[in-house]
Parts: sequence; C-alpha cells; structure tokens
Amino acid sequence: MRISGKEYRTIWFDEKDQAVKIIDQTKLPHQFEIKNLKTIKDAINAIKTMEVRGAPLIGATAAYGIVLAIMEKNDPEFIKTSCENLIKSRPTAINLKWAVNRMMKKLSGVNNNEILKIALEEVKLICEEDVKFCENIGLNGLKIIEEIYNKKKDTVNILTHCNAGWLATIDWGTATSPIYHAYKKGIKVHVWVDETRPRNQGASLTSYELNEEGVPNTIIADNTGGILMQRGEVDMCIVGTDRTIATGDVANKVGTYLKALAAKDNNVPFYVALPSSTIDWETHDLKNIPIEERNSEELSYVVGLDENNNLKKVLIYPKKSKAMNLAFDVTPAKYVTGLITEKGVCEASKEGLKKLFK
Amino acid sequence: MRISGKEYRTIWFDEKDQAVKIIDQTKLPHQFEIKNLKTIKDAINAIKTMEVRGAPLIGATAAYGIVLAIMEKNDPEFIKTSCENLIKSRPTAINLKWAVNRMMKKLSGVNNNEILKIALEEVKLICEEDVKFCENIGLNGLKIIEEIYNKKKDTVNILTHCNAGWLATIDWGTATSPIYHAYKKGIKVHVWVDETRPRNQGASLTSYELNEEGVPNTIIADNTGGILMQRGEVDMCIVGTDRTIATGDVANKVGTYLKALAAKDNNVPFYVALPSSTIDWETHDLKNIPIEERNSEELSYVVGLDENNNLKKVLIYPKKSKAMNLAFDVTPAKYVTGLITEKGVCEASKEGLKKLFK
Repeated sequence: MRISGKEYRTIWFDEKDQAVKIIDQTKLPHQFEIKNLKTIKDAINAIKTMEVRGAPLIGATAAYGIVLAIMEKNDPEFIKTSCENLIKSRPTAINLKWAVNRMMKKLSGVNNNEILKIALEEVKLICEEDVKFCENIGLNGLKIIEEIYNKKKDTVNILTHCNAGWLATIDWGTATSPIYHAYKKGIKVHVWVDETRPRNQGASLTSYELNEEGVPNTIIADNTGGILMQRGEVDMCIVGTDRTIATGDVANKVGTYLKALAAKDNNVPFYVALPSSTIDWETHDLKNIPIEERNSEELSYVVGLDENNNLKKVLIYPKKSKAMNLAFDVTPAKYVTGLITEKGVCEASKEGLKKLFK
Repeated sequence: MRISGKEYRTIWFDEKDQAVKIIDQTKLPHQFEIKNLKTIKDAINAIKTMEVRGAPLIGATAAYGIVLAIMEKNDPEFIKTSCENLIKSRPTAINLKWAVNRMMKKLSGVNNNEILKIALEEVKLICEEDVKFCENIGLNGLKIIEEIYNKKKDTVNILTHCNAGWLATIDWGTATSPIYHAYKKGIKVHVWVDETRPRNQGASLTSYELNEEGVPNTIIADNTGGILMQRGEVDMCIVGTDRTIATGDVANKVGTYLKALAAKDNNVPFYVALPSSTIDWETHDLKNIPIEERNSEELSYVVGLDENNNLKKVLIYPKKSKAMNLAFDVTPAKYVTGLITEKGVCEASKEGLKKLFK
C-alpha cells in the first residue's frame, strides 16, 4: 500500500545491501524510516522492540531472521539456537512459531551450499502467500460490508482496535483489507480507530495508513467505543488477532474483549479477520494462551512531537506510581460474529473452523 | 485528605485574600498549585477547563461562583445571568444544576445587604454536607469491602475508573471513600487504577491521591480491566457518577460502561458511589442524558515531564488525523450491583432509590 503516494511492503530483501529492510514502526506516525536488519540479533530486536509488530509481519520477520542467521553463520547449531531465540522473542502471536517451524521443515536435510537460496525462496513464498491471503480476506470481508451498505444506503461505520492493517502484515492487512477493498469499490466507509493504549498503534499506525490511502477515519479513545455503539454509530467491528485457538476463541491486543462485549450488548456484528497462519490448532482452552506482560514504561512514558517538531518522550504518570502492562486479552468465541479468513467467513467455533480448513 | 503530609480540601474561601482557593487539577500530578478564583468568570473557566472537576466539586465550585458574582456586582440581573452561565459551563454533571438551584432558592427574596453573607454560609453548608455525605458513603461501602475481605482473607483488589476520589469532591471522595475507610481500618486493599484517557484522571489524580495516603495502587491502561477480571484479579469495581437518573442508570466518565460489561461477564460486583446530589430525579430515560463532547485536542496532545523535569505538551497523533472526544457514557442499571449512597446501599433501580430517598 501507499505512503506519501509510493507503494511499499512492510518487509523485503534488498540484494544490493544484502539486508532485510523494514519500516521502523516505532517511529511512525511522526517519522518514516527504513531500517536494515543484517543479523539474527537485529531481527529478534526488531520483533522485541516492536519495530515490526502484528502477527503476520512478526512471522515474516522471524522467517527472514533465519535467512539472516544463515548468512551470518551457516552452521546447523547456530541456526537451531537462532530459531529457539526467535520463538522466545514474543509469546502471544502464534505466527512466529508457525513461520519458524515452516522454515525449519523446509530446510531440514538441505545441504550447506543450497540452504541460503532455499531459505530465501521460502521466505519470499511466505510473504507472497500472506499478501494473497490478506487479499482474499479482503474480498471475503468486502461482501459483509457491501451487505450492510446495501441495506443502510449510507456510510458504513466500522470500528477497529489496534493495528491489523497492512503495517501488521506484508500488504493489505487483515482487519483493514475488507475496508480497503470496499473503499476501492466506491462503497462509503468511515473507520472509528481506537487509539489503543498503551502503544497507540491505532492512532499511530491504523489512522496513519488509512490517511495515506485516503480512507476517512476518526481516532477515538479506547473508552469511547461503548457509547458510540449505544448511540448506533457503529455498524460493525473488525479486528485482527494474534492467535485464534481451535475453539474459535481469539487473543488480540488488550481491550479487544471489551469492544466485543459492547458489540454484543448493542447487537453490532463483531468480526475477526485472520490468515490461517494465525490459527493455533493445538490449544483448546483460552486459559492456556500465554499473555505477554511488557515493560510498564510503555504506559508511563509517551512520545510525541513538541512545538518545534522534535520527537520528545515525556513521563505522564506520577513519579511514585506503579503501572502494569498486559499486552493481550482473549475474546471468547461466543462474542465473535464470524471469522473472516482467506478461505471464507466461518463461525468462531471448532466446527466453523474445521469446515473451512480440514 | 493529605498532599505531602498536609491536610487539604479541594476548595475553600480565603477571608484574607477575599478569594476562592482551588487546587489546579490540570497541573497534577506534576505540579501542586493553589489558584485564586476572584470573579464569576474565573469560576466558570475553572469548571470548563477542568481545573476543578468531579460532579460534587463542580457543584461546590458553581455555588462559590455565585458568591464571587455577588462580590463582583451585587445586582439581581447579573447574578441571574451568572447562574445561567454556570449551568451551561458543563452539561453532564447534574450537581452543577443542583447546586445553582439550591443557592438560588436560598437567596430568593434576600435583601442586598445580607445576600453575600447568606450565600457564603450556604456554600459552606453545601461543602460540609458533601464531606459528611462522602464520609457516610465510605462507611456504607466499607461494609462491602469488609465482607469480601473476611471471605477472601487476602488483599481485596478494587478496580476504579477516572477520579471519583477526594479530588472530585470536597474531601474523602465517593468511589475512594470506602477504600480510604477500609485502608484506615487495616483491611488490605489494592486499587487497579484505570489510566482514563483522554485526560488521564485515573493516573494523574486517583493514583496520585492514593499514593499520598499510602494506599497501594497500580495504574493500568483502560483496555486492561477485562483481562484482569478474566483472570480473577479484580474482586470488585467501584466508580463514581456524574449523574444517576431516576431509573438507576448511571452516566460517568466514558469507558465506565465497558468495565461494567466486563464485570457482569466475569461475576465481579460493580458498585457506583454517589451523594444524593448526583441523582437526577427528573430524567427517566438514559437516552435523554446529555453527553458532553469536548475538544479533540484533549486526545491528540499529551502533557508530561521531559528529561529536564519540565512540563511539555506533545502531539501524539498523525497531523492529518481527526479525533473525537465524547466525555461520558451511560451504564444501564442492570449492570450495576448496587448504588452506595450517604443513606445506605440500594439496588440501582427506581424502587431501590425510592426506598432510600423518598
């Protein structure tokens, strides 16, 4: 998708620089910077510090991390340790594990001379597949938006939480893909963008990327979705997910669950958009989803532009105060109207998922 | 209650300066500043810009505003216009209207020579009553906390939203009064403080005042309450209210409704603490509660301390983005476990309220 009118993807391999290139998302929306990853450490660091984030992009970065590890030291032990470290870098997004396992399976038994070439081909395949999956998610979700539009004959107001946009994937996004497809088709859409504390990915990334594509959007505090739904100003919700378990329960950025409850209470359809790489078929109890606890400074400090357009980091909490930063929550399947996947839309349940995928 | 070990109230009349003194709450938690209000314009400005906020304190400030108006120009027309302007200064908190009406009733027919003296006496009475009401709210709510403590025999974790602390009243607070009473009685309590975007009154005021009284507390993003309840880490919620209507439905800081939904979904008791001055007996449909929309810059800009301990205001949203700032939402009575008032705890319903108050 576009930034300042130019087409980008979120991650790519640069032959000339022999480096993986990413958009440093910690600098957005105030600065647009492309960063080189040259070592496995760079890749892990990019995931941990959230220079890249979003389940599909974390997966792709991990896969590229393996390429960087091979480039660094073409040694089975080193590659194995690198994979283990990658998997440990963030606990909740399942795509990370999925991508590493897929790479390892592909590279198992491959000889030293060929391993880099094959690894690189496989990463590129992962990325192309992700783009295709996201495009299909868009086409499948488009039908839902279109249906509401045909009934309402006026702007469709869609609420989203966090960033499940193209910046969270390789291109198109998951939750945003149906929105971009609807917009490109001439359907009037308007997006309520949850600010998404503590890291403000909604304001900093979702609103930013929607602006760059020209999609009308308004940022709201995370607290505001409820009253908007009470007033009938939300026609549907679409969010992404970091892990959908076999039962259809959905882990996503903390606060998603609260919006799902409000949607249920106000009869607003609540959809979750995901590529199948985000499904954790092995977990059957939402209590077993690991919930990452991140540094509380993500809450107590905020970065923004001062009056001279310089980036400034400020402490917003009382100096004596403690803070706690859980990054995810789990939305039980019963609050999810449907899962929008690359294969179609299904019920958020074991049966619904199985019908599409097995 | 105490700030840096010294006892304060949030508002008082200073004979020597012939001024109303307030703590400028827009500067907290980083700077503690006492400000003089000398004119009706000062009082209205303090309410509008939220130098004072919280339904009971807004009421007291409005009553003091009438005193200032009389001091400025002891003229019935001027006083009448001042009252009208006061009522218009913020729409949702009902105490504002209540306090102005009470003052006007008291002053009706009073002659020019006596009006200032009587007005000042009446304001002081309003303030003393508020303190007494809040103290009684504390004693009534204490019983609920005590009951949980006796069952659990371990720290009672209480979640609160926004600031319904002593800084929102004259002293004690509404939602915090049961907590302060429990703490003073030696009951182990810990408070989860919702940050409360966009103005962060939870972090800036509630956590601040709890710190100053030594009550253990942890700030969380507004998004976090749901997962904490899912994990069983919240024993009860207590919030304040800006207006409780005759049916028991409760308007409070935006986001309250989302916490009430999560509490219901996880069987966590959800209490609303209020003095009877907050009850709007004339409104019977929650759709008729006016919801204030405030300046969107309250969302897009944040104030904090920079590395040199200077207050800095920074823009956190993309420059092109729009934002929308609704200040309140409404929690339907069915999600409220009970109303904690100065007269006792009652069901959030017409019948419950009538039993206590009529």
